[in-house]
Amino acid sequence: MSEYSAPLRDMRFVLEEIAPLATLAPLSRFAEVNAELVLAILDEAGKFAADVLSPLNAIGDREGCRWDDGAVLTPGGWRAAYRQFQAAGWNGLACEPEHGGQGLPRLVSALVDEMWNGANVAFALCPMLTQGAIEVLQQYGSAGQQRTWLPRLVSGEWSGTMNLTEPQAGSDLSAIRTRAMPQADGSFRIHGQKIFITYGEHDLTENIVHLVLARVPGAPAGVKGISLFLVPQRLLDADGQPAARNDLRCASIEHKLGIHGSPTAVLAFGDGEGSVGWLVGPENRGLEIMFVMMNAARFSVGLEGVGLAERATQQALAYARQRVQGSELGAASRDKVAIVRHPDVQRMLGVMVARTEALHAVACVVALAMDLARHHPDAQERVAQQAFVDLMVPVVKGWSTESAVEIASVGLQVHGGVGYVEETGAAQHYRDARITPIYEGTTGIQAADLVGRKLARDSGAAALALIGRMRQVQQALERHGANGDRSDAVLAQIGRALGDSLSDLEVALRCVLQGDGVRNAAVAVPLLEMFGVVTGGWQMGVAALAAGRRIAAGEADRAFLERKLASAHVYAAHVLPRSAGLRTTVVAGADAALALGVALQD
Amino acid sequence: MSEYSAPLRDMRFVLEEIAPLATLAPLSRFAEVNAELVLAILDEAGKFAADVLSPLNAIGDREGCRWDDGAVLTPGGWRAAYRQFQAAGWNGLACEPEHGGQGLPRLVSALVDEMWNGANVAFALCPMLTQGAIEVLQQYGSAGQQRTWLPRLVSGEWSGTMNLTEPQAGSDLSAIRTRAMPQADGSFRIHGQKIFITYGEHDLTENIVHLVLARVPGAPAGVKGISLFLVPQRLLDADGQPAARNDLRCASIEHKLGIHGSPTAVLAFGDGEGSVGWLVGPENRGLEIMFVMMNAARFSVGLEGVGLAERATQQALAYARQRVQGSELGAASRDKVAIVRHPDVQRMLGVMVARTEALHAVACVVALAMDLARHHPDAQERVAQQAFVDLMVPVVKGWSTESAVEIASVGLQVHGGVGYVEETGAAQHYRDARITPIYEGTTGIQAADLVGRKLARDSGAAALALIGRMRQVQQALERHGANGDRSDAVLAQIGRALGDSLSDLEVALRCVLQGDGVRNAAVAVPLLEMFGVVTGGWQMGVAALAAGRRIAAGEADRAFLERKLASAHVYAAHVLPRSAGLRTTVVAGADAALALGVALQD
Repeated sequence: MSEYSAPLRDMRFVLEEIAPLATLAPLSRFAEVNAELVLAILDEAGKFAADVLSPLNAIGDREGCRWDDGAVLTPGGWRAAYRQFQAAGWNGLACEPEHGGQGLPRLVSALVDEMWNGANVAFALCPMLTQGAIEVLQQYGSAGQQRTWLPRLVSGEWSGTMNLTEPQAGSDLSAIRTRAMPQADGSFRIHGQKIFITYGEHDLTENIVHLVLARVPGAPAGVKGISLFLVPQRLLDADGQPAARNDLRCASIEHKLGIHGSPTAVLAFGDGEGSVGWLVGPENRGLEIMFVMMNAARFSVGLEGVGLAERATQQALAYARQRVQGSELGAASRDKVAIVRHPDVQRMLGVMVARTEALHAVACVVALAMDLARHHPDAQERVAQQAFVDLMVPVVKGWSTESAVEIASVGLQVHGGVGYVEETGAAQHYRDARITPIYEGTTGIQAADLVGRKLARDSGAAALALIGRMRQVQQALERHGANGDRSDAVLAQIGRALGDSLSDLEVALRCVLQGDGVRNAAVAVPLLEMFGVVTGGWQMGVAALAAGRRIAAGEADRAFLERKLASAHVYAAHVLPRSAGLRTTVVAGADAALALGVALQD
Repeated sequence: MSEYSAPLRDMRFVLEEIAPLATLAPLSRFAEVNAELVLAILDEAGKFAADVLSPLNAIGDREGCRWDDGAVLTPGGWRAAYRQFQAAGWNGLACEPEHGGQGLPRLVSALVDEMWNGANVAFALCPMLTQGAIEVLQQYGSAGQQRTWLPRLVSGEWSGTMNLTEPQAGSDLSAIRTRAMPQADGSFRIHGQKIFITYGEHDLTENIVHLVLARVPGAPAGVKGISLFLVPQRLLDADGQPAARNDLRCASIEHKLGIHGSPTAVLAFGDGEGSVGWLVGPENRGLEIMFVMMNAARFSVGLEGVGLAERATQQALAYARQRVQGSELGAASRDKVAIVRHPDVQRMLGVMVARTEALHAVACVVALAMDLARHHPDAQERVAQQAFVDLMVPVVKGWSTESAVEIASVGLQVHGGVGYVEETGAAQHYRDARITPIYEGTTGIQAADLVGRKLARDSGAAALALIGRMRQVQQALERHGANGDRSDAVLAQIGRALGDSLSDLEVALRCVLQGDGVRNAAVAVPLLEMFGVVTGGWQMGVAALAAGRRIAAGEADRAFLERKLASAHVYAAHVLPRSAGLRTTVVAGADAALALGVALQD
């Protein structure tokens, strides 16, 4: 089993060429953020990920969490690691300075999150959920709520959760039944059962701040009658210290395929007189508010995909470099060689590397846009950036996670039979990754968001604007002639592949923009996959252009730059071509799927 | 969790239209095999699979096997089930009648094997391996060996294994080190360690017949110095009864991702004076002989893919029909409906169903060809059928198993969060399926066999002949005009899709036939996938033609026939289009993969 190593060189390249940190320099919010500072942070985070979190990943998988009469014990070593994590201040990286955060760009915290996910995704879920709770309270909490709860959430002394799902209410939150009864003192009493609550109970922090969706008496039916409540695990005493347990308990934790270190709780609110909670934001607007948190969380789950893809790729590379088996095809010598020299293994590894780089690049471009959408001085620019973010969040979530599952599967395959043995570690990534296309909205839900909301609400304007941006990169690539040197020829090839795929995407997009809701829903996932595949190709094209320019300029680190060019070439020849089949499916696949769907109903 | 139910109606359709049982009627070997008999066998097998094997599948997963000081205990209920399996005579279905077998066609035993795999793949591995040992001894055993070992292998009283892998010799068997020292009495003494031995030790039978690859003193280096030995777990006494244990022991069993009910043993041969064994076939010809067994086993592992795909599809369908969530898109009513009514779920299920039918159909066509290759009276026909079988065995193995992994993953996705909880059962299929693209030769090894041996040895003649057969089906489909009725229009659409994919395959095939070995090796897996995707489309086209013909003739069971047409349509619009991207990768992807491969070597 190989330990995680933060890809710092790749990250620096991304901050220089793909999602330039320099773009943020003119923004007053980030006046003090410079490359030196950021690289120092990434270096420290990389050490923490490699030295502390990564070694606990297999332990967490093997030991899992233990439910003991309502308490949940995390695996050995996790409490100490969390204390270190908190003490180092990692929890508040991107939080508002007024609440104790460091106010760093999402671009930077995204890279750090990616490291936590690569090192130990089950651990990383705890701060990820806390981050979501912080964002809700920063935006919607009353001044008192912010004062009471935010500082210790930001510091990581307390953790946060999202309580949405109930047995009958999963993807469809309109079916939520948990009740909140108003009390004379302005608080509420909560009764109901929530399931699939990540870190809903654990021993890492002295309190847990649950954000819970529930209905007040007389609320309208459906999604317009759901309110959001803050329900702490422990109520605070007069000094603001966690004291008596609230009337809520962890009834059990799930026995899952993966992320064993992350407890998935069934929470029973109000066995007795009801859990004490307080309304966050206006009554009946809970789902809207939760969507703010959910969009942030969806992007964060996309980063889980990126981190897991990176981890699986590192593990496969490490194995392939040391496992000796067979002699080299086409070589005179019959000496046994490491399997990294076999063409089919090179194909598997190359596609893993290229896809992972593409996921990474697209996520960073979106993270940068998030910062610009929030802090750019020009209002029009903020609107344009937000439109791009809104369009891309379901793509980053859906495509990165589905890709991570496939990449982890190929990673296991690289190991052969040894990959199927649990001790090797490849199987854990395959199991861990499998949750990511499900939670925070399945890929189907992401695709419905993309097609039914993001494309529908502006008739595809943001998507067409994005295609225009991508065409510019394609044209820049194609300006490199086939009669230039080898780099030039590769750039031109990448440009042609990107051009073909952009045409595929345009055809599919126009088909969906003219289609009806039901037929579109049947091909929304293939369209989402196309967006991922093609935007990945766009950013690999950007990377290739930068690498080509630097190579031509005779920069040092030529091996690194050649590798960037080669991985973009692999992406262009092994991944981008998928768009052709997807186009056909989007254009011609709806009727067939719906007809068979009817036949399968019973 | 849903139990397995044998798809008898589908199987009957296959025996009538796809791989017609009637083709075997003129063969003297199968003079007594008729549809009535075969359907009765399938019916009985279906009951055994559903009633006995399927309920043990989750138990096997949960309990796993237990190693106890060299002994291996199978999960609760497995011994009793195996006794029933043996008593019912299932073990010898396709074995030679002279050794106590029933001499049924491979076509029939393939359908039955598929049921065992669908019901409980970990259990099915035991008779699968026994079958391999039987085939070796039927073909290469001496008369004495056949008399001594075959009857009780055929009856299932004893089981068989394949002992190939050693720690340093996995995909590359030339590195085998196990030694066999000749003794004065003609026997040998075996010393060495074998790993990954499926059912290498267990408590289901009173003896285990190991077939072991080893080197005799002075044997040539590499693959030409490997011999095959029969090494029983227990030596026989004068009455031919298992008596003293041979000098071999199970040192441990693996802790695996899946197939927990199937023990994967580390076997130590010859801790003391050496395990007693006997040479099977000529000295130094062991690998050739083992390849006979391996080809049969590869096809059998392909059937594991088919069975697992069917099981995962059944599980997802059962869940989607009962899980109520959300209201129907585009419907006036806001009533909650089963998720099988949501377009994206319909797409997922439809693609699962269509792909599984395609895997099933192609495997049966190959099984029929195996029977014809062996028993057809015309020598030229036997050669042609064998060429088709040889070409298709790596495709059935590689494509069916890779597809099974993807199908099981989609099946888990259909369940949403519940799919990630182990008790649901979907995760077991996802874990179990993952071994199938690895053992009996990884997909990379299958692709190397396809490209480096099967295509190379006849310069693609068998492949081009196959494309010719597929073109005929395409033309028959395209004769149905778009201005006919709805069935006709669908048939024409399927024909056009198949035509496009056949052109893709031809381009890719010609590229590989002209390519050099190293570059071909880098795109062999995408080419293998194309063969699978396109031959699947071919057989879905055959099915659609038959369904269309029967619908036009006004046959009963119209709903079933419409469903066949619809699933072929889904395959044509959602699966066949993949060939376009694969063609590009085969044609243009080798150089990029090899260039990046060099960059990744350290």
